[in-house]
Amino acid sequence: MPTASDHRPATLIAGGAVFPHRHLTGIDGLQPHEITFLLDEAEGWVEANRAHAAPDKRLAGLTQINAFFENSTRTLLSFEIAGKRLGADVVNMHAAQSSVKKGETLIDTAQTLNAMRADVIVIRHGSSGAVRLIADKVGCPVLNAGDGWHEHPTQALLDALTIRRRRGTIVNQRVVICGDVLHSRVARSNILALTALAAEVRVCAPPTLMPAAIERTGVTAFIDFDEALEGADVVMMLRVQNERMAGGYIPSTREYRTLYGLTPERLKRAQPGALVMHPGPMNRGVEIDSSVADGIQSAITEQVEMGVAVRMACLDVLTRQARGVEGWA
Amino acid sequence: MPTASDHRPATLIAGGAVFPHRHLTGIDGLQPHEITFLLDEAEGWVEANRAHAAPDKRLAGLTQINAFFENSTRTLLSFEIAGKRLGADVVNMHAAQSSVKKGETLIDTAQTLNAMRADVIVIRHGSSGAVRLIADKVGCPVLNAGDGWHEHPTQALLDALTIRRRRGTIVNQRVVICGDVLHSRVARSNILALTALAAEVRVCAPPTLMPAAIERTGVTAFIDFDEALEGADVVMMLRVQNERMAGGYIPSTREYRTLYGLTPERLKRAQPGALVMHPGPMNRGVEIDSSVADGIQSAITEQVEMGVAVRMACLDVLTRQARGVEGWA
Amino acid sequence: MPTASDHRPATLIAGGAVFPHRHLTGIDGLQPHEITFLLDEAEGWVEANRAHAAPDKRLAGLTQINAFFENSTRTLLSFEIAGKRLGADVVNMHAAQSSVKKGETLIDTAQTLNAMRADVIVIRHGSSGAVRLIADKVGCPVLNAGDGWHEHPTQALLDALTIRRRRGTIVNQRVVICGDVLHSRVARSNILALTALAAEVRVCAPPTLMPAAIERTGVTAFIDFDEALEGADVVMMLRVQNERMAGGYIPSTREYRTLYGLTPERLKRAQPGALVMHPGPMNRGVEIDSSVADGIQSAITEQVEMGVAVRMACLDVLTRQARGVEGWA
Repeated sequence: MPTASDHRPATLIAGGAVFPHRHLTGIDGLQPHEITFLLDEAEGWVEANRAHAAPDKRLAGLTQINAFFENSTRTLLSFEIAGKRLGADVVNMHAAQSSVKKGETLIDTAQTLNAMRADVIVIRHGSSGAVRLIADKVGCPVLNAGDGWHEHPTQALLDALTIRRRRGTIVNQRVVICGDVLHSRVARSNILALTALAAEVRVCAPPTLMPAAIERTGVTAFIDFDEALEGADVVMMLRVQNERMAGGYIPSTREYRTLYGLTPERLKRAQPGALVMHPGPMNRGVEIDSSVADGIQSAITEQVEMGVAVRMACLDVLTRQARGVEGWA
Repeated sequence: MPTASDHRPATLIAGGAVFPHRHLTGIDGLQPHEITFLLDEAEGWVEANRAHAAPDKRLAGLTQINAFFENSTRTLLSFEIAGKRLGADVVNMHAAQSSVKKGETLIDTAQTLNAMRADVIVIRHGSSGAVRLIADKVGCPVLNAGDGWHEHPTQALLDALTIRRRRGTIVNQRVVICGDVLHSRVARSNILALTALAAEVRVCAPPTLMPAAIERTGVTAFIDFDEALEGADVVMMLRVQNERMAGGYIPSTREYRTLYGLTPERLKRAQPGALVMHPGPMNRGVEIDSSVADGIQSAITEQVEMGVAVRMACLDVLTRQARGVEGWA
Repeated sequence: MPTASDHRPATLIAGGAVFPHRHLTGIDGLQPHEITFLLDEAEGWVEANRAHAAPDKRLAGLTQINAFFENSTRTLLSFEIAGKRLGADVVNMHAAQSSVKKGETLIDTAQTLNAMRADVIVIRHGSSGAVRLIADKVGCPVLNAGDGWHEHPTQALLDALTIRRRRGTIVNQRVVICGDVLHSRVARSNILALTALAAEVRVCAPPTLMPAAIERTGVTAFIDFDEALEGADVVMMLRVQNERMAGGYIPSTREYRTLYGLTPERLKRAQPGALVMHPGPMNRGVEIDSSVADGIQSAITEQVEMGVAVRMACLDVLTRQARGVEGWA
């Protein structure tokens, strides 16, 4: 169980054990001390990036393939910068316009990437479980950069790191996650990470966008956003997807804002100084007002910054065994 | 005021002062000796590139983000090669197909790039002033790779370098810029640079494509191309944009060529040996005939070559302060 | 004439002569010992890649431009990884969406790439002969990554390397190439390479997809796949292009599979342990059955692996003269 003292830097995780996972396909399956270990590792990269320090090219000579079957400019950019800062040969496969469209199976693509002797593969895919499927077929670590409605583990890690740095701890923080919880891999991974790290997690969504039996994941569910916000330490807004609007899940952006938009007035229901978060890109004026997004309580750009650090940590940790780092053989 | 002796290499600009600009958003605002300084810096890279010399990786460990909100294969390629030759970690953000399309604001994109701790950002954008807007929001140097109808400063620098190398000097050179002056950032930046460097600049355009009160910028305006060409030392042709045709600014490519195309016959009105230039890509047989584009007076491929050198110089100079280069703190 | 002993590593080709070609635009024009030399060079990179060995950055400081006028995720990825593993500054020009579409001529594009002082240019283009055209206009080596129906030399080299490694030799191997031979640059380059290396090559295609007078290339032609397979050591399947279906060359995928699909039953007609190959991406269930593609006789993923090694060898060999490697001046 992590405590407020979980900030100490670590090179090996508690008890001298190494991080025992070959892939990072999700937060599901990680122990709390393993999550904390990744956050600790990321801390060091935050400082290095801010100092624009002399580069530490520990992944020099390694090939990182970013296979994005679903477009995502920000996440791709973040993984690409992370890999290049560590010295990896980073290659992007824009699979959204690739032979996958020619009818090639996912397994064939996995075997192709594997045969090119990649050292680490970062995958984003529109189908839940696709990353796991690929991970099972390749001989190198696989990092999930978002798959369907399933998981987006590095997003949860960067959110946890942001909370830990800004609030001092994650333990007992009341975190409200509001929006389309049903279709959100961001929400799913965050629920797993934050409950593992002993936060008190509340989810809030319109009835049509609330997963059935969500309480089983250890969270409290709210339909009324005002009620959910009472005493919140952190308010994490989810992006409204235009396709939900078209699908009839949401009546209109106007009504959505009225009921679920984070306005300055509504934010006052949370704790004074409560942290405001959003995974981006934002729909300003829909799920979040500009004055809130740009206000002093906002940690939104800090989340982006933590993203690069977290991804550097994950790329580093997952390739340690292959690189023969001491204690990881 | 620059003279024909302005070729001497320089590391600090005249009087020991450093280049005092954080960004390069335009030629507007640069002093003549500052423009000359950038040209001098570029000279050294021309030779290094031709020698395919041992690489000088002075930007090693720095992150250069090329954020292109408007497609441009050539300019992107040129900036990417320039950065990689200097050892930077170069990352392209193909923003034309990015979250900007999801409705994200330009400011949000700027803050995202900034949060990733870029060391220099190169931006191309379809809207005039967008680059300036982003520059105001980020903590690192910004280079304008073309914004709307506003400016394209590295194009003007590479054109000036080409003229200086081929004609020996820019002072008193009669330069004719012909084409869609109204919508051309290339024309605008060139007018600013060449008049600053004491060239005699003439612009020539159909009446519908001539900016009002253009004479105030220090140039002479012509509707008749033959007249404009009299005694010209340099003829710089602008690309005919297909959208102008559709917009009714130009009656037909055939008529355009008759009145404003640079044919071998028409070129004879200029000085013997006058330089022929074009920013590319060319519409052969419209604004320029193939025999002229490929003739001995053409400096068109040399312009492309100067482009890489000029961009290396700009990337180097703008990051000196952050890199702690002596005299730049 | 190559023999089974052609595996010995070589740094200079037979007789102390260097590889005498500036470009690699096709297999056509290569001597058998020159093909063997490239395969020998590639062997070393196979081992290095498998060992994820300390990188040999012999192309450091060189600029490799991948100019792909036709989309190909796999081939681009393979060339990009090959160049980066060798330390080159690799720049991709996605020409399919570039100024070529603005009407720029191929020659202009070639001159632009050349003016940027590329050290090696890799080109893929939809028109036969386009690569040769560009090669004639530039001052650096050009590598053909596939042009129209003409050639795809690195594909033939990687196929030859795969056969040599798996079968011990290429001499006297009975290789059946089956599919759309008429429109296939893969078939064309393979016929040239394999006949040069003394294999016995059989081609098999529906009458509408069999080139006229194919026997003149030294192969035997079959319409009946079962007959062609008799005693085969290697079965190389070609991809069915959807556009052939639309063009009426093939009645239906169902009928195609019946007559020309490689099923487990049909494979039994070949030699026991015959090698199964496919350049990818596969249409599983059309030209090849999944149980065959994934079976123990399949070398399909090994082909992908050999692709990176072959491309490393070609990039290395073609830049030796410019790099002043001893014996190559």
